[in-house]
Amino acid sequence: MKLRIVVTLKNGVLDPQGKAIHHALTGLGFTGVNDVRAGRLIELDVADNTTDEAIDEMCRKLLANTVIENYRVERASPGKVEAGFPSGDANKKGA
Amino acid sequence: MKLRIVVTLKNGVLDPQGKAIHHALTGLGFTGVNDVRAGRLIELDVADNTTDEAIDEMCRKLLANTVIENYRVERASPGKVEAGFPSGDANKKGA
Repeated sequence: MKLRIVVTLKNGVLDPQGKAIHHALTGLGFTGVNDVRAGRLIELDVADNTTDEAIDEMCRKLLANTVIENYRVERASPGKVEAGFPSGDANKKGA
Repeated sequence: MKLRIVVTLKNGVLDPQGKAIHHALTGLGFTGVNDVRAGRLIELDVADNTTDEAIDEMCRKLLANTVIENYRVERASPGKVEAGFPSGDANKKGA
């Protein structure tokens, strides 16, 4: 079972990495960028019988610092094998 | 317009961060974890008139190292404002 754990900073927490990216984009001449937030993504391949509780515990114990970070667990839909993850109108690029 | 840029290592590229997470999960007693890959997530809030080409250029010039990384651009669906990003059966946690 493939999972994607998305870890993002909570609102109100300073994001120096995002600020640096924003600054760099502006410096490269990209206008119209209002805000940038940096986060982490962890792709897990776990056994099919792994419970939601176990996944939640992994996130709280290791993958995310819940004091300053939110996490979200996204699952690959069981019906769709080729897509890997449900990602709406996502475009795979740079392959 | 809110965008989510997902940057992941290409297949075959060594992922020491993912390996370390895998090792730590095993050490914490979580069995059944087959593989872990670490990636980056960059949330951009850009002007609505930003072209796909500009977004692509941002990724290639700054956000991803296309020699070793893939990137994927995910868009918030125009119809859905509350969800923020299309994420299938995602569960927001840790808020």
